[in-house]
Formats: sequence, structure tokens, C-alpha cells
Amino acid sequence: MKTKAVFYHAGCSVCVSAEQQFAIALDPAKFDVEVVNFAETPGRIAEAEQAGVVSVPAFVINGAPFHINFGASMAAVKGEA
Amino acid sequence: MKTKAVFYHAGCSVCVSAEQQFAIALDPAKFDVEVVNFAETPGRIAEAEQAGVVSVPAFVINGAPFHINFGASMAAVKGEA
Repeated sequence: MKTKAVFYHAGCSVCVSAEQQFAIALDPAKFDVEVVNFAETPGRIAEAEQAGVVSVPAFVINGAPFHINFGASMAAVKGEA
Repeated sequence: MKTKAVFYHAGCSVCVSAEQQFAIALDPAKFDVEVVNFAETPGRIAEAEQAGVVSVPAFVINGAPFHINFGASMAAVKGEA
């Protein structure tokens, strides 16, 4: 069974770079990769924060957050910063 | 031709977690993944810094650094911090 990997981003340049290198780099035999852009689906911010995502871009794999470089804080994503 | 991806780490727990999730997650059809542990090969610190690595764990793919979460600064790796 494939592992679900969710790539959260917000359309920033750092995010796009990470997406181009990583989101398409994971072994398709092992992972189902879903790309979530908060600019398009702000309703999914809560699930990302619950998984421990504090900045974007980030992957959540097996429930664990992996932040890739630093594009923007979640506060900025939510328009609080 | 496969892309070379180098995963630099220093043996910290954050590094090991990232290695287990990422270094083995990249598509083997697209990437040749090399794992470098600075604790074993400190002579490769310079090449990582030159590629822009400022903390570990990090990947360098196509010459671009991707820091995964934060384990330790390069200063700490070099024993300066």
C-alpha cells in the first residue's frame, strides 16, 4: 500500500522550487503525493497545523511534518503576520 | 540520466527521521541518492557550505540546497557553536 504524502504550499517562490524538486521526486511506487495550495484551499490550513506544520512549503508524511526551507509562516499564510 | 541528490546530515535525531522518510523516498528511477554524515566525513563540510547548506539535515539537488526541518546549524556541526 502506498504512503500518503501531502505537500502544503502557498504559491510562494520558495514553495514552487520545492514542489518542482520534491513533490515530483518521491518514488511513485511508494507514495501517493497530493499537492495542497492554501491560496486555493484555505479550508485545509487547520489539518496542516494539526499535523504540526508551522511554515510552508512542507510535507506531511505518515503524520509527521517536514518543513522544506522557509517560504512563509503559517501566521503569514493565514494573513495574521 | 539520473539526478544526483546528496543528503547531508550529522547523525542527530531530526536528521535520522528525515533520512528515513526522505532519503529513501526519492524515486530511484530519477535520483542517485548519496548520504553524507559529517560525523564520519567532516572533509565534505566545505562542499555543502559552498552549495548553500546552512543547517542539517539538508538535500542538495541540482546544486540547490533544501533544508529539511532543523537539526543543527553548520556552525554547530563544525563545533563553532
